[in-house]
Amino acid sequence: MNQSALLNRRILLKSRPIGAPVAENFQIEEVAIPAVQEGQVKLKTLFLSLDPYMRGRMSDAPSYAEPVQVGSVMCGGTISRVEESKHPKFQSGDLVLSYSGWQSFEISDGKGVTKLDPKMSHPSLALGVLGMPGFTAYMGLLDIGQPKEGETVVVAAASGAVGSVVGQIAKLKGCRTVGIVGGPEKCRYVTEELGFDVCIDRRADLRTELAAACPKGIDVYFENVGGAVFEAVMPLLNVRARVPLCGLISHYNDTKLPEGPNRLPQLTRTILTKRIKIQGYIISEDYRNRFGEFFSQMSTWVNEGRIKSREDVVNGLDNAPQAFIGLLEGRNFGKLIVRVASN
Amino acid sequence: MNQSALLNRRILLKSRPIGAPVAENFQIEEVAIPAVQEGQVKLKTLFLSLDPYMRGRMSDAPSYAEPVQVGSVMCGGTISRVEESKHPKFQSGDLVLSYSGWQSFEISDGKGVTKLDPKMSHPSLALGVLGMPGFTAYMGLLDIGQPKEGETVVVAAASGAVGSVVGQIAKLKGCRTVGIVGGPEKCRYVTEELGFDVCIDRRADLRTELAAACPKGIDVYFENVGGAVFEAVMPLLNVRARVPLCGLISHYNDTKLPEGPNRLPQLTRTILTKRIKIQGYIISEDYRNRFGEFFSQMSTWVNEGRIKSREDVVNGLDNAPQAFIGLLEGRNFGKLIVRVASN
Repeated sequence: MNQSALLNRRILLKSRPIGAPVAENFQIEEVAIPAVQEGQVKLKTLFLSLDPYMRGRMSDAPSYAEPVQVGSVMCGGTISRVEESKHPKFQSGDLVLSYSGWQSFEISDGKGVTKLDPKMSHPSLALGVLGMPGFTAYMGLLDIGQPKEGETVVVAAASGAVGSVVGQIAKLKGCRTVGIVGGPEKCRYVTEELGFDVCIDRRADLRTELAAACPKGIDVYFENVGGAVFEAVMPLLNVRARVPLCGLISHYNDTKLPEGPNRLPQLTRTILTKRIKIQGYIISEDYRNRFGEFFSQMSTWVNEGRIKSREDVVNGLDNAPQAFIGLLEGRNFGKLIVRVASN
Repeated sequence: MNQSALLNRRILLKSRPIGAPVAENFQIEEVAIPAVQEGQVKLKTLFLSLDPYMRGRMSDAPSYAEPVQVGSVMCGGTISRVEESKHPKFQSGDLVLSYSGWQSFEISDGKGVTKLDPKMSHPSLALGVLGMPGFTAYMGLLDIGQPKEGETVVVAAASGAVGSVVGQIAKLKGCRTVGIVGGPEKCRYVTEELGFDVCIDRRADLRTELAAACPKGIDVYFENVGGAVFEAVMPLLNVRARVPLCGLISHYNDTKLPEGPNRLPQLTRTILTKRIKIQGYIISEDYRNRFGEFFSQMSTWVNEGRIKSREDVVNGLDNAPQAFIGLLEGRNFGKLIVRVASN
């Protein structure tokens, strides 16, 4: 047994970021792995998911979940292998979905650990299209967005883990689907590979291009970005439009409110005169009991090739901080995953 | 027959206001009343309703309804008496709810004219608690707000035609009910006569007093004001709070967006982290088919004395412009109505 199997390499939150996170906010260390006690399992991390919500956990501003404490391991969903089990539910060799965080091993009591099909050909999909991001896309679009055939659905961050699934489901439901992304390469991917009707580069003249792409206005705007994208969308929203809101990545690094004018009254006026519904949701809190329905439908779509996905895989736990910093700047292309170990 | 019965006195929109409406935006004139043709009725206005939404119709900014054209009669709901009928549905003497606007007579084809119970002791209630404002309160609170026993409901403009009904229904549903009004006299009315648990003068230190009045946060905020009131409410909204939005009276006279900071991201962040639903609605558009249900329930509550209402009656059509200007400044006390004729 080599030394790396005896030590847990892990990344701690060293300090809370002010604005954009920097490398110095993280600390890498190695510690001994405690012995497995009765009722515990030893999990070896294979894949770590990196997701925008983690930026919220790095701050101590009030939010829907407790922040990561300074000096604690960064949180995160993982695909792991059971290396040793003294827990009746798990056996050595099991492939599991866990919430082990940014570390190579975890001693777990099994809570929140779910067994995956050991024959799963691409287990990392359980962190993407078949996991939290896909579930977020599915429930937000279908339960809150309620898209109807022929309606126009606009998706921010359309090449990302959530947006790419939203747009493909909208197409399956017969909607005109318009994506917004950063850069021409992502634009091509979204239209040519994912089948969106139109894609707009957010660095272009967004208002003009979005208006041209939505000649009948916008019926559903799937919001996970905020900022300039939302401001361009607002005037195009149709009467009775629905806005599911699951993220605001353009604001996560804000240190203060933007300068004026104050557009709050513009939004409330739009909500009033167009009778719009805006609804925030947190997939892990609000739709817990519908995961089975989602997983069954999405697995079918994925197996039939009707929903595609793309992964941006970074090798090595030590690269997680830089990859995460890039995620907040839109530098990833597809679902961002860290390969922590090969098997 | 005296001369006034031969002439229609009416108030036209003379010019579109910039900011707050002024007397010069209106023009009073008298014109001959055309003869009643086959299929028509002659309606004599008894009461004219004055409501904040009329400010929107004076502007030509895009909204949910067509603006009043310059040179046309100002729009408005009325209680009228049928003076002459060549329409099979109506007879001379019938009491009706109509949309005759700011004038003493209307020749109508009967569309949108509803007969009222001729024995109704207070027909003007059909413009208030038993009419559009009461209906707005009922559907917004119950269908969008979905208040549950023990929850905290905050009501802006709580002594007004809509807010006063919202708060009383919330009390009937077992909620802690907090009103916000302008001035101590309205405060007393809201707590002592309408039975709200607490009332706050919006000219006080709103944030501090609202926080003290809502120790368990806010579950439903019934929004018809906007501005500083909404900004004070935002930080107190609970997880899964609901915000029915039917008006924004504090903004109706705005000529431009307020100065910064831009609080739009503060609102969207609140919607996200607290998973809030904000939904705009226009009672006449969105709940047409539920008027019967409302009317039946509200009539019962009113007859049993469980829902009270107060009217602010102004005598004489010529006083409508000044009364309406005062309404936008919160100078009315209760449902504002113009008595145009006594019988």
